[in-house]
Amino acid sequence: MLTRRHLLSAPALLAAKPHHQGNLSLNEDCNHFFVNRRKQRLTRESIRQWVDQYAATQVHDLILNVNAMRSSFPSQHREAWWTGFDPSGGPQQPFLQPLPASARQTWFEWIRCAWQMNEDKLDLFAIWIPEIRRQNMSPWISVRMNDLHEVDKEDHPMHSSFWRDNKQFRRVAYRNEQRDKAFDYSHKEVRDYNFRYIEEVCQRYDFDTLELDWMRFGFHFRPGHEDTKILTDYHIEVRKLLDTWQRKRKHKIGLAVRVPSTPRTAKRLGMDAEAWAHLGLVNYVTVTNFWRTVDNNMPIDQWRKLLPKTTTLAAGLELGCNAFPGSTATNNRPWQSNSLETSRASALAYLHMGANKIYLFNYMDSDTALDDNSKYSDLLRNLTDSTKPRRHIVTYQDTWAPGETPNHSLPVNLEANKYATFRLVTGPAAKAATIRLGLTNPDVKVRINNIETSPGKPIAPTHPGPNIPLHEFQSQFTQSTENVIEVAAQSPTRIEWVELSIG
Amino acid sequence: MLTRRHLLSAPALLAAKPHHQGNLSLNEDCNHFFVNRRKQRLTRESIRQWVDQYAATQVHDLILNVNAMRSSFPSQHREAWWTGFDPSGGPQQPFLQPLPASARQTWFEWIRCAWQMNEDKLDLFAIWIPEIRRQNMSPWISVRMNDLHEVDKEDHPMHSSFWRDNKQFRRVAYRNEQRDKAFDYSHKEVRDYNFRYIEEVCQRYDFDTLELDWMRFGFHFRPGHEDTKILTDYHIEVRKLLDTWQRKRKHKIGLAVRVPSTPRTAKRLGMDAEAWAHLGLVNYVTVTNFWRTVDNNMPIDQWRKLLPKTTTLAAGLELGCNAFPGSTATNNRPWQSNSLETSRASALAYLHMGANKIYLFNYMDSDTALDDNSKYSDLLRNLTDSTKPRRHIVTYQDTWAPGETPNHSLPVNLEANKYATFRLVTGPAAKAATIRLGLTNPDVKVRINNIETSPGKPIAPTHPGPNIPLHEFQSQFTQSTENVIEVAAQSPTRIEWVELSIG
Repeated sequence: MLTRRHLLSAPALLAAKPHHQGNLSLNEDCNHFFVNRRKQRLTRESIRQWVDQYAATQVHDLILNVNAMRSSFPSQHREAWWTGFDPSGGPQQPFLQPLPASARQTWFEWIRCAWQMNEDKLDLFAIWIPEIRRQNMSPWISVRMNDLHEVDKEDHPMHSSFWRDNKQFRRVAYRNEQRDKAFDYSHKEVRDYNFRYIEEVCQRYDFDTLELDWMRFGFHFRPGHEDTKILTDYHIEVRKLLDTWQRKRKHKIGLAVRVPSTPRTAKRLGMDAEAWAHLGLVNYVTVTNFWRTVDNNMPIDQWRKLLPKTTTLAAGLELGCNAFPGSTATNNRPWQSNSLETSRASALAYLHMGANKIYLFNYMDSDTALDDNSKYSDLLRNLTDSTKPRRHIVTYQDTWAPGETPNHSLPVNLEANKYATFRLVTGPAAKAATIRLGLTNPDVKVRINNIETSPGKPIAPTHPGPNIPLHEFQSQFTQSTENVIEVAAQSPTRIEWVELSIG
Repeated sequence: MLTRRHLLSAPALLAAKPHHQGNLSLNEDCNHFFVNRRKQRLTRESIRQWVDQYAATQVHDLILNVNAMRSSFPSQHREAWWTGFDPSGGPQQPFLQPLPASARQTWFEWIRCAWQMNEDKLDLFAIWIPEIRRQNMSPWISVRMNDLHEVDKEDHPMHSSFWRDNKQFRRVAYRNEQRDKAFDYSHKEVRDYNFRYIEEVCQRYDFDTLELDWMRFGFHFRPGHEDTKILTDYHIEVRKLLDTWQRKRKHKIGLAVRVPSTPRTAKRLGMDAEAWAHLGLVNYVTVTNFWRTVDNNMPIDQWRKLLPKTTTLAAGLELGCNAFPGSTATNNRPWQSNSLETSRASALAYLHMGANKIYLFNYMDSDTALDDNSKYSDLLRNLTDSTKPRRHIVTYQDTWAPGETPNHSLPVNLEANKYATFRLVTGPAAKAATIRLGLTNPDVKVRINNIETSPGKPIAPTHPGPNIPLHEFQSQFTQSTENVIEVAAQSPTRIEWVELSIG
C-alpha cells in the first residue's frame, strides 16, 4: 500500500558519494568468476585481485550480482550453487546428470571451486566490497529478480527448489516457452521469497547501492495482468528496508533497477520505473535490452524527460551486437559481441541523448567477453572518448510486452527500384562518415541525409559484421544526434547490415 | 532565433474562455461545404445553418480549415479555389482538363459554388465564426501547413503557383512519391509564404484559436534534416503575431497544433510539440494518425506526462477504421469508416489515458462522413458516454519518420500450434466482453488476459469489419486500461481483424 506516510518516510535520496568521475557501471554476474577460475583454489588475494583491473578506469560502479535462482553466497533462504553437490562425486554424480555430458566436467569444477571457497570461509562479496571502495569505486549488490537460465530442464542444477516445487506460481501454465516459466509476482509468496533474500543481502553486505535486476529475465506477470502497482509497492518496501540499513551503516544506500528499453514496454510489463523514481524510491534507472544484442535505438532522450532530473539514467549496453532476430554474424556465427568501436558508438550516442551513465552488462574479463578481449583494458579506459573511432550499427529491440508487435529494421529484401531507409542515433556530429552495408548485391545507390555518397566498394569482413559481403560508401556529411541512410536498389538485393562509421 | 525576450513576451496562455463542457473538437475541411452544397447558390442563411447541427452537442470547438494549397477565402497571398476558373466555361474548360473526365462536372459545380459565394460578397468564415460563438461553441481557424492532395498531377486545379513554380523548395528531388513533393520548411521562402497567409487569416478573422495543421501531410523536411529548431522558431513568430492580435481583439487567442501520434516520431519529423508547449507557444496539442485509419494505440499517457499540465491534450481520431496497410473492409471495400461504437471505443480509451479532448477529423456531415451517417447526430451527442456500447479495434500507426520501421499487428498468418498476441487500450473496465476475430479458419483457442473464452461461433459481417469470416468469443473478464488477447491456432489460419466489444 502506498500511503502518505510511506512517501514521507522515504528520504530524498542521493547516490552514494561519488568516488571519481567515471561514467561506467559494470555488472559482474553471479558465477562467471567461479567458472573462469574453476581450476584454482581461490584465496583472499586471488579474489581481491579481480578488482585491480577496474581501478583507475572509467568504471565508477562495480555491480556484483549475487544470484540467479541460486545464491553465490550461502543463503539461509535459498540454495547456494553447491547445495546438493558432492565435491568428491566427480562429474558424473547425480546432481550433474541433467547437464549435457560435454558440460559436466566444467560444471563439476566451477561448483567445486565455489564450494571450496565457502569451505575455506571466504566470502566473495565481503572481500570485493571493501576492496572496491579502497580502489575508489562504488560497490553495489545486484539481485536478479526472476532468472530463467535453463528452465527448459526442470531438474537442472541451477534451479531452486522453490521454483521447482511451486509450479502454481509460474506465469503461464498453458505454454512451454522460457518466459512462461518465470515467477508471477502477483503471488505474495513469490514477492516474500525474494524479499527475504534481499533482507539477507542487506544484513550480510555493506554496499553503496542495491540493484534489483528486473531484466533477468523481464517477465514477471501473467499476460494482461501487469498491474504496475504490485512492483511499485514492492519498491516501497525495499526502500524502507534500505532506509533502516542506511541508519545502521551510517551512509546513504541507493536503490537501482534495470528495466526494458522503452517507457511503454516497461510499463506494459508491470515495471513503472517512472513512478518508482518520482516516488523517490529509486535513484538510478538502467534501461536496456534483454540479451542477444545491444539496442541501438533506445529513446534515452524520452526517458530523460520522463524521469526526475535527480534520477541517474543509465543506458544499458548488452555485450552482443547482432543485427536482427536470427541474424548470422561474420564467419557464420549465430552471435557476436560488440567491439570497442561499436560499444563506443552506442555509449556516445546515449550520452549525447542525455544518459548520465553507461551500464555494461556481460562485459566481463573472460568467457562472456568481447570477441577481441585484448581490447578490454582499452574499453574500460576509453569507451566514451569521442575523439576515437566509433561504429554505429543498426540492431533491434529484443524485449516486448505481450501483445506488442516486435519490430526490427533488418533484414530488408529490396526489389529493383525500391529503397529502404534507416535512422541511426549517432551522438556528436563528425566531419565525415563511412557507410557500411551487408548486401547480397552491391548494385545500390546510397544517400546519407538526402546527399549521395561515393560509389560503393567491397571490403573485407569486419568484427562485428554480417555473414554476407560488406560494401563501403564514403560521405563528407553527417549530422549531430541522428543520421538517415537511404539505400536504393538498382537491381534486387538483400540488406543484412547497416553501419555508420566515424573516425 | 529563440531569445529570452521572446520567451518573456509570450504570455502564459489559457485557452479561450470555455463555452460549455463539451469535450469534442471537430474539423471542417476547406472545401467539403462547397462540394456538398455545390448545386445551391449559397446564402448567408444557408451558410449559417451549417452551425446548427453542432449546437448543444458535445462539440466545444468548431475548427474551420481555410486552405489546402489554395484558399477558401480570396487571399492576397495565394490563389483561391476559383483563381483561373471560368464560371461560364463549363466542365470541359482548360482549368479542369487535368481532372479525370468523370470528375469534371462535380468540380465545375463546387468551384462555381465557391466562386458565386465570393461574387455575392459572402465570406464563409466571417459568417460562421460569430454564429459559432452565438451557439456557445468556440470558433477556430485551421491552416494546413503542407497540403499534398493530387500532387501526382502537376497541373491539377488544386495547386498553387508557388508550389508549381518552385520545385527547388520541395522535400525530395530524386524520387516521385507524394510525400517527396511537400515543401521543405528549411527554406525561408516556404516559411514566409505560409506566414503571410497566417497573417492574413489573423487580419480577416476574429477566432478563439489558430490551429497549425502540421498533419496535412506531416512531412516538412528533407530526410535526415528534421531540425526541430526550425519549427520551434516558427511557432515563436506565430505566437508573437497572435499576441498582437490578442491586444487588438481584446481576448485571448490560443495556438493549437496537430502532430504525429508518438512523441518520438513527431520529433523525428521536425515537430517538437513538447518544446512548443513547454515554451508557452502552444496551448493545445492534437496527436493523430495521418489518414487511412484511426490509430488505436497512441501513447496518450506518455504525451500527457511529457506535455505541461496546462496544455490541452487532444487525441485525434481519423474517420477511417482499417486494420492494416492494404486491408480490405467488409463488402470488399478498400476503406471503411468508423461506426459510432468504434469511435466511442477510441474516445473512451484515450480519455481514460489522460486526453483532455477528442478531436474528430473528417467526421463531416456528408460525403466524407460515417458509412452509416444516420448516426451522426448521435455521435455528436453521445460519443463519450461510457454506458453505451463500444468496439475496440486493432488498427495501425500510419505516419513514421524516414528511417523508422513501420509496424503493424495485422495481418498474422499462423501455422498450427502457433499463437499471436494483441494488446488493446480499452479504457474503463467492463464486466464482460466479446472478442471478434476475422479468421480464414476458425479452429483457434482464444484467451483474454490469460483466461480462456467460450468457444467461437460464426457471426454475420459487421460494419466496420474484415472481408473474411468473423467469429465471436465470449469472456466474463476484462481489465481496466489494457486487455491482452491471445489467439492459438489448432490448424493454420490467417487473422485480419481483432476486436474487443463491450456493452
